Formats: sequence, structure tokens, C-alpha cells
Amino acid sequence: MSEAAQTLEGWYALHDFRSIDWQAWKAASAAERAAASDELQSFLSAWEQTGEQKQGSTAVYTIVGQKADFVIFHLRETLEELNELETAFNKSAFAAFTKPTYSYVSIVELSNYMGQPGVDPLQIPEVVARLKPALPKAKHICFYPMNKRREGGDNWYMLSMDDRKTMMRSHGMIGRQYAGKVKQIITGSVGFDNWEWGVTLFADDALQFKKLVYEMRFDEVSARFGEFGDFYVGNLMDAETLTKLLAI
Amino acid sequence: MSEAAQTLEGWYALHDFRSIDWQAWKAASAAERAAASDELQSFLSAWEQTGEQKQGSTAVYTIVGQKADFVIFHLRETLEELNELETAFNKSAFAAFTKPTYSYVSIVELSNYMGQPGVDPLQIPEVVARLKPALPKAKHICFYPMNKRREGGDNWYMLSMDDRKTMMRSHGMIGRQYAGKVKQIITGSVGFDNWEWGVTLFADDALQFKKLVYEMRFDEVSARFGEFGDFYVGNLMDAETLTKLLAI
Amino acid sequence: MSEAAQTLEGWYALHDFRSIDWQAWKAASAAERAAASDELQSFLSAWEQTGEQKQGSTAVYTIVGQKADFVIFHLRETLEELNELETAFNKSAFAAFTKPTYSYVSIVELSNYMGQPGVDPLQIPEVVARLKPALPKAKHICFYPMNKRREGGDNWYMLSMDDRKTMMRSHGMIGRQYAGKVKQIITGSVGFDNWEWGVTLFADDALQFKKLVYEMRFDEVSARFGEFGDFYVGNLMDAETLTKLLAI
Amino acid sequence: MSEAAQTLEGWYALHDFRSIDWQAWKAASAAERAAASDELQSFLSAWEQTGEQKQGSTAVYTIVGQKADFVIFHLRETLEELNELETAFNKSAFAAFTKPTYSYVSIVELSNYMGQPGVDPLQIPEVVARLKPALPKAKHICFYPMNKRREGGDNWYMLSMDDRKTMMRSHGMIGRQYAGKVKQIITGSVGFDNWEWGVTLFADDALQFKKLVYEMRFDEVSARFGEFGDFYVGNLMDAETLTKLLAI
Amino acid sequence: MSEAAQTLEGWYALHDFRSIDWQAWKAASAAERAAASDELQSFLSAWEQTGEQKQGSTAVYTIVGQKADFVIFHLRETLEELNELETAFNKSAFAAFTKPTYSYVSIVELSNYMGQPGVDPLQIPEVVARLKPALPKAKHICFYPMNKRREGGDNWYMLSMDDRKTMMRSHGMIGRQYAGKVKQIITGSVGFDNWEWGVTLFADDALQFKKLVYEMRFDEVSARFGEFGDFYVGNLMDAETLTKLLAI
Repeated sequence: MSEAAQTLEGWYALHDFRSIDWQAWKAASAAERAAASDELQSFLSAWEQTGEQKQGSTAVYTIVGQKADFVIFHLRETLEELNELETAFNKSAFAAFTKPTYSYVSIVELSNYMGQPGVDPLQIPEVVARLKPALPKAKHICFYPMNKRREGGDNWYMLSMDDRKTMMRSHGMIGRQYAGKVKQIITGSVGFDNWEWGVTLFADDALQFKKLVYEMRFDEVSARFGEFGDFYVGNLMDAETLTKLLAI
Repeated sequence: MSEAAQTLEGWYALHDFRSIDWQAWKAASAAERAAASDELQSFLSAWEQTGEQKQGSTAVYTIVGQKADFVIFHLRETLEELNELETAFNKSAFAAFTKPTYSYVSIVELSNYMGQPGVDPLQIPEVVARLKPALPKAKHICFYPMNKRREGGDNWYMLSMDDRKTMMRSHGMIGRQYAGKVKQIITGSVGFDNWEWGVTLFADDALQFKKLVYEMRFDEVSARFGEFGDFYVGNLMDAETLTKLLAI
Repeated sequence: MSEAAQTLEGWYALHDFRSIDWQAWKAASAAERAAASDELQSFLSAWEQTGEQKQGSTAVYTIVGQKADFVIFHLRETLEELNELETAFNKSAFAAFTKPTYSYVSIVELSNYMGQPGVDPLQIPEVVARLKPALPKAKHICFYPMNKRREGGDNWYMLSMDDRKTMMRSHGMIGRQYAGKVKQIITGSVGFDNWEWGVTLFADDALQFKKLVYEMRFDEVSARFGEFGDFYVGNLMDAETLTKLLAI
Repeated sequence: MSEAAQTLEGWYALHDFRSIDWQAWKAASAAERAAASDELQSFLSAWEQTGEQKQGSTAVYTIVGQKADFVIFHLRETLEELNELETAFNKSAFAAFTKPTYSYVSIVELSNYMGQPGVDPLQIPEVVARLKPALPKAKHICFYPMNKRREGGDNWYMLSMDDRKTMMRSHGMIGRQYAGKVKQIITGSVGFDNWEWGVTLFADDALQFKKLVYEMRFDEVSARFGEFGDFYVGNLMDAETLTKLLAI
Repeated sequence: MSEAAQTLEGWYALHDFRSIDWQAWKAASAAERAAASDELQSFLSAWEQTGEQKQGSTAVYTIVGQKADFVIFHLRETLEELNELETAFNKSAFAAFTKPTYSYVSIVELSNYMGQPGVDPLQIPEVVARLKPALPKAKHICFYPMNKRREGGDNWYMLSMDDRKTMMRSHGMIGRQYAGKVKQIITGSVGFDNWEWGVTLFADDALQFKKLVYEMRFDEVSARFGEFGDFYVGNLMDAETLTKLLAI
């Protein structure tokens, strides 16, 4: 048996991808559309307030391509809160004009591969802050779920802790070169959803997503052990783009 | 030919995952909704009573994310009873506001890897109780189906009984560390459904699902031989949360 | 090139899995439901008569879980007859309340792995009877399609006839231990459908399906070479259960 | 780099699988059904005429099982013609009672593995005829797409031309044993559709499809290198069976 | 860690595949159809104008087979512009008669495998032009996404830069033989969509797609390392074919 990595967990996460039923939206009366938009705006305000009160954080982005029209990415203290947010949205007038396309349940996670011996990570304020992060308002988002491979000679979970630590440090070095360009939120989903981790990236220049993920692919951790799910990329949805999106 | 593990079987199991058609639910009249809710409550009461009479057990949980809105997990003496429960629900008023999303057919199973030679497990009351268990009212549920791998050098079914026994004991040790935190129901589904086993976990702290499953993943049984299907996680649905869920 | 196994073929087979559209069924008038039920009963009678005339055989079972509500399993002399049965059902009043969920096209097959040299199997009445079998009225059915693996070192079709024969005999030994408990119909589907074989099992005790398939999984033929599709399990649909199933 | 096989190409091919919406068909008035049938008959006549003028060939077969109700298999000189046939059918009255279920785009192909050195195959009339074939009116059709495997030690495209030639000749020997029983049309789809080839077989005895494909599976080309998609099998649709199929 | 290839990026790309809902189109009034067609024509004109102003490029092709009826392939400076084009189309009258079937998000990419040391590729006008290309009006299009394999002994990302460079040069040699026959646009999608690259080919003779892709498949880069998604092939949609396509 190989030694399991220790992990620290923070807020629970729900990525809720949805597409808009444009035909129904156009068929609705202006009054219906206005009511739905207003309610949506009030949801956005309430989520914003939760963020200000540091009891969670929510980011909303449009998605490019047919996989979805937008994603609501919630971070909250409990699974129950995520469930309530989901249900409240489902009951909203706007939800009737949308269709769920994909979702992901996970929890903000920091692994101890980078940890220093003898140091309690929860005594480091920066670590604590990263467990319950305020999601940034970057121009772009990128999301993908991933596994560590367990196949024949490429079985991550059969490696020694030392081998994994060495590879993860090299991996982390690449990430650091993108500091200031790409903000990365890792959420763990073992036992919660179909992949082992969700990766959510934020950047003002979407090209940096490609540069980062492509460079990492040549790193042994990704090259030999990375298995990736669907990739989503999108643009920040602020008041202006929302208004524009919903205008008929 | 490798020696097959002996298994003990108890109640048949049906996991019935469903999503709610919120648009139809909201479009229904208050009277229709009330009638549907009342009928659903009477189903819940009937299932509760079956549990009290120790003729089966049923657990109902909401599910977080888009995979489903809730799961009904039935344990009963026969496949015919499961079929009747399914059909009765399908004919209910509430079912018309739901859509089936996934189901799993299996049977409560205990393997003899842990057994002691010369001891008839059916003479151990604790074993008998575990074959026909009363499902707990824990705050959270986790469900996933799994296989033991049969690929090239990683073929569980070509291992000797001794090798399998050694690995399963190590695996069981991890589980025991979570005693009191996570309750585990293993159901076998060879010949009944698409995977070989279903794993249903119950815990008051959902994070323990992640801790347990992640720690086990570094154990050789999971690392080399575990293949996993979709993971579902959710929250206990009691009278209060049900009322809240269905309130418009 | 490895020597191909010789096979004997009998009746063509169609497994037709369907689910019931309960909402439409409940929305229909009592008269519509009665007409649809009557027509369905007349189909069942006609199929029964074909069986009595030994011109085919048909079994109807409910299916547990969401994969389907019932399966109609037809054996007939030609593909044209199967096609006509399918079309006739599709045009029936009851079909309008059902949705196709899965089907499988194959032909009853006996392989010569068990054959004795110098013996013409078609001179053995028991063999001939097995090629055009009367399907039993057992309490339960189990169906799954399967392939023999062709991957790297585990390539069934590259083995010598002798190796295959040895393994198939061992496999057959397990099956024989279930004689009287499980009746097995093997249908070949190479060139007809997506897997190489369909396996249909009948038993009065559904647990025997699990015992048999699980025990076989430790046998080299299954352990190294078996690839399995979806598993379906269900209960005999007789006049009584049909009436109960369709009652509103 | 391994030497690529030379290929000869003839007519473009479109396999257009569709199912019938029986509920809509039954709900239509007799006049609507008659109009749709008449138009369909006129399409069939036009396709027949194209065949007589040797400007293409079209075969229509029903399909057994739920994968489709029928297939229209067109061979024409250009992709534009296939597109026009597709669109014309889509606009027809009958198409409104059907749903597309699968399609395949390819081109009639002969490979030079069987060619003799120093002989220009296009000077052989039989070869030219096989590139633009008149599709037979056999009682049964079988269709499946396939790839040559490129995995680890089983990589067809890394083999030498000589090795491939030897294996393909052995493969061809099996095919020749079925001459007069099974007619085979190979269409290449590299760059056109998701698999590398489509195989369409015609036979008066459907059992010959199984015999042929099963025997080939023990041949090294298929055993080690064949990857297969969905299999479709069906019956000739002539005026009589069409009338019967559409009668309500 | 293996050295990552350097890449140059140009315009962002969106491939938007859609099918036409023929039943709805035929059910619409002539006036509705005319309005929708006119609006579509104005979209085409606007996209044409963007091309003339060298602020992007758009190509529209019909697709053969059931995977889609047409594809709109946009190249633009930003992800936001692609998103706006998508939304504008979704709100159009014509979009209500279509269904999204597949999309792909990527960015025009040139890799430096072919680069010469000491030369800044961005100083080469031809390179710059290839990053922001005017899409050709060839008669045919071919699109498919692809990955470089990372499996056991066939792991592209574990190869040395030299090995990759050697293989990519051989690969490029094949491409050059098709100069003048096939125009190739490579778009990178690591971090943007589910595969690593999209390949879009243009040719006046569709057979050249097959010849090129098939020849490349014997090249080590494709044979050992190429993994391919769905292939789409189609015909140029100009004013004439559009009018014909939409005529009822």
C-alpha cells in the first residue's frame, strides 16, 4: 500500500452548466422576459452579497460553443447550501428558459505535496485563504475535470510518496511561471463526482489557458498520468454582457 | 481456474435516481401539487412502515448536481417486490413530474474474504443483521458502482484466493478506521446490472466520503484493480427538506 | 490463422426491450387502455400459439430498474418473421404507450467445443431440440451480450483450437453444476448485432444468476477473455402480473 | 514510415438509416399516408432509374431491431449528389414520419493488396465494374464500419507492406470461399466518416453473414487488427414489403 | 520533463455544426421562411464583410450525412467575438429551425517543429498570414479533432524534442505533396475544447481528403500517436446551393 497524500479541504463547489432555450426565450412576452431577467439579477445580487460576507463565492461566465451557454460556479460551506442554491435556481422564472447540460460537485482542496515538514499548513494565513477563496472577476474561465491514471505501468496510486512529491513539485513549478496570469482553483471530487479533481482557471488573456495546459502536458505528471474530461472555456458575464445576452 | 470467493446475500436492492421536471411542477395547480405531495408522503410512510416491520428498508436522499434530484434506495426480500415498488411509484401523481435518470439493481452482499475458517457466518448475529440492514438516517449519502479490473497484468479474477484475501484485508483495515464515521453497504450486482458491485456510503460529514475513498485509492485493491462508475452524493430528505424542496 | 470453431444454428432471435410511457398510459381513457390491453393480450395469445405449433417461441418478462419495463424475446425461423413481429407490435395500440430502449438480433447457437469427434451433432435429438427451444416459464430472466476479448496478450481468436477447447470445457463444467437451477440459451450475433453473443438465462431463483455468472468470472475464459455489455434482470410476466402492471 | 497501400476509388456512398415514427404515421389521415407513400414510391422509381442509367445505384432494406427501421444505401458520382438526395428525402412528406438514426459517408474502394505487379488495375474491366457496382437485390443486407487497430504491439499501420499483403491475401481467401453466397462492397471512409471502412454485405441466406464474419475473426487481420462498429442486418424492401410495412 | 513545443497563435476559431429541423421548416409559412432566409443572407453578408475587412473569416459548408446539415466556421480576434456571433445566430429567425449538433472551440496555431533556428517566425510574412488566414472557397471541407496519444510505450509527450521534430518533419513532407490540392488549417484546442487540435481541410476534389489522411496514417506520427474524433465532410454553401437547400 502506497502512502496517501494528505489534503486540506475548504468550501464545497458546484459548477452548474446550462444552455438557454432561445426559442422559448424569444417566444416569451417582453413582460415575461423582464420578470425573468429581474429575478436573475436578484439572484446575482444575493450571490454577490454572500461573497461580500465571506460566506461563499459565486462566479458566472458565458461558455463559448454548444456545450453550454453559461456556468454558475458556487463555493459554499456545505453540500446542503449548494443543493438549496440549485433548487432555488431551478424554481426561478429564468430557469424555465434554460436546460442543464453538465454539473460538477467537488470541494476546494490543497494537497500537501508542496507542504514543508513540521509546518501546520492551517497556521499559514495564505493557505487558509486559498481554502475559502473569493473567486476573481477575470475576463475568462476554463474548467476541466481530471483523473490520475491507473493503467499498467502508468499507475499514479502505486507510486511511492517520494516519486509523487518530486513530480508534483515539477508540476507546480510550471504553474508558478503563470502566477499573475492564471489563477487556479483545484477542487477534489473523489467520492463526490465522476473524476478525481476539477480544475478551474481564471485569466484575463484566454491564450494563457492554452499555454499553461499545453506546457504542463509535457510534464511527466500530465504526460504519463493525466486523464482529462471535457474542457469548457468562457467569458465573464457582468451586468452589461448579461443585458446584451438576454436582449431580443 | 482461480477459486471463486464465497458470498452471502441478503435483501435485493434498487437505487432509483430521478430528476424533477420543475417546469411541469410549477405549471401544475396548487391542488395538483398538493395531491401529488400527499401521495408521495403516503408512499414515504408506507416504506417507513415496511422498515419498522423489518421486511425491508428504504432511504430517500436529494442528490447534488444535475445527475439527479433525488434517489430512492429500496431494500426488499425479492425482485418482484422491487418491481412492484417501482411500478407503484411510476403510476403515482408525483412521478409524472419526474424523469428517471439512473437506476441500479443489486443485492446486499458479504464476501468471505474476512471470514474465519471453521465459523459459519450465518451463525453470527451481526453478520445476519448486516445482510438485511436498517438503512441509517445519516445526513449524507454517496453511491457508486464498481468493477474489479481484468486487464493484462492487472486481472483480479486470475489472482490466487490468498493474494485476493491479503489485499482485501488491507482494504478492510482502511474501512475500519472510518467506523462510526461512515457506514458502508456493499451490494453485489454480477448478473443483475452493469457493474459488479454497488457501494452505498452514509455519513453525517460528507467530507468523510472523500477521505475514505481517496485513502482507499492508494490501496492496491483500488489502485490496481478498482474501476469506478458515476459517483452520486446527496443530503438526507426528511419531512422538512421535502416540504422545502417542493414548495413553490 | 487459428482454426474457427464450428457452430450449429437454429432459430433467429430478437430481444425487444421497451419502457412504458406511464404519463401517456394514465392520461388515456379507460376505453383506450382496455382496447390496448386487449390487443396486447391477443398478441400474447398468438405468440403462445406459435410456440404450441413449434414454429417459434416467445417469452415476455418485466425488467427491474429503469433500463426497460419489459422485454419480448422472440425465436423464429427467419429474420423476416422477426421483422414482421416487430412491425406488427409497433403498429399496435399498446406500442404507442411504450418506447424502445434496447434490442438484440441473434440466432440460437451451439458451438462444437463440447462435441465429440466422429459424432454428427445433428443426429443427436437433444442437440436439435436445443437449436429450436421452447422458452421456459421460469420466474426470472437475465440477459447480457458478450464478446471474447482480442487485446494484446489476451486475444481469444489467436489461441489454438486446443487451448480454446480446454478452456471452454472447464467453463461448461461450471454451467453443468447449475443444471436444474439455471437454463441457458446462447445466441450468436457475429454479423447481426454489436456483440458476438447474447446470453439469456432463466431461473426460478434469481440469486442463481449471480452465483453462476460470478463463479464463471473466476474461470479463465471469462476472467481473461470475457467482455460484457449491459445486464438486464426481470420477472415473468404472466396474465396476472400483466393485469396488475397495467391497472390504473 | 510504412508504405501506404494504394487504393482505387469509385462512387461515393451514403448509408442513411432511419426509424419510422409509428405514432405519427398512425395518427396521420389515410390521405396523408397515401400521399406520403406515393411520393416515396416515386423516389424509389427515380433511384431505380438512376441505376438503370448506370449513373449510380440505390438499395433499400428494412432493418431488424430497434437501431433503425430501414436503410437507404446510395452510390453516386459526387458528394454533391449524395447531399442532394439526402435533402430531397428530408423535404419529402414521408421523411416527416421518420427519424434519422445513423448515417455513413464513404466511397467504393479497392485496395491493391491483391494486385499483381505490372498490371494496371483500371485496365481490368472487372475491377472497373466493381468500382461503380450495381447493388444486388439479395434478400438480406449486413452493414458495419471498421478500423484497423493501432495499439501497442498490434499496430496495423506500423507493419511492413509485405506483412500486410500476406495477411490480406489470407483474409481474401476466406472471402472467396463465400463467392456466390455473399457479395461484399468495401467503402473507404478515411477523412469522410468516423471509421476507416464500411463493409456492406448482401446474401440470400442471412446466416452466411455470420459464418463469413465469424470465420474471418480467427484470421490474424481481424483477430489482431480488426475493430468493429455497430452491426446492422435487414431484409430486402421491395414493393410488396413496403406496402405491407406501411399498411395500417 | 520533456521540452514543450513552442507555438504561435492567431485567430480564435469556432466550428458550429447544426442540423435543420425540416418538419418545422416545411410547416412554416412562405412569409416566415422568406424572412428567415433573408436574415440568414444578411448574416452571411456581414460575415463576408468582416472577411473583406480582414478582421476575421467565415466559411459555410453543408455537411453530408446525418451528423449535421451545415457548419459555420468562424475565425475572429477574440473569444468574446465568437460568443457574440454564436448568440446573434441563436437569436435569429433561422436558428429556430435548426438544432446544434456539435461545436469546436480552438485557435489558429503554427508549431515550431518546422521552424529554423535563429529565425523569428513572426518576421516571416507568410507565417503571419497563416495565423490570420482568409478561409478559401474550395468546393469541399473536411473537419476532425485529434489528440497525440499518451499510452504506455506510445506516449508523444514523453518523447524528446528531437524525436518529435524528426517525426513531424516526415509528416509535413506528406502534407507538402498535397500543396495546391488540399489547404490545411490547424487549430489548437488544449485548454479550450475536448481534443488537442482541430484539423480543417479544404479541397476542390474531396477524394484528396481521403488520399491525404490515409497516406498520413502510415506515417509514425499518426500510426503510433494519432487519436481521432468524428470526421465531417461537406460541400461549399454558396448563394445558389443555399437557395436550393431552403427551397420547399
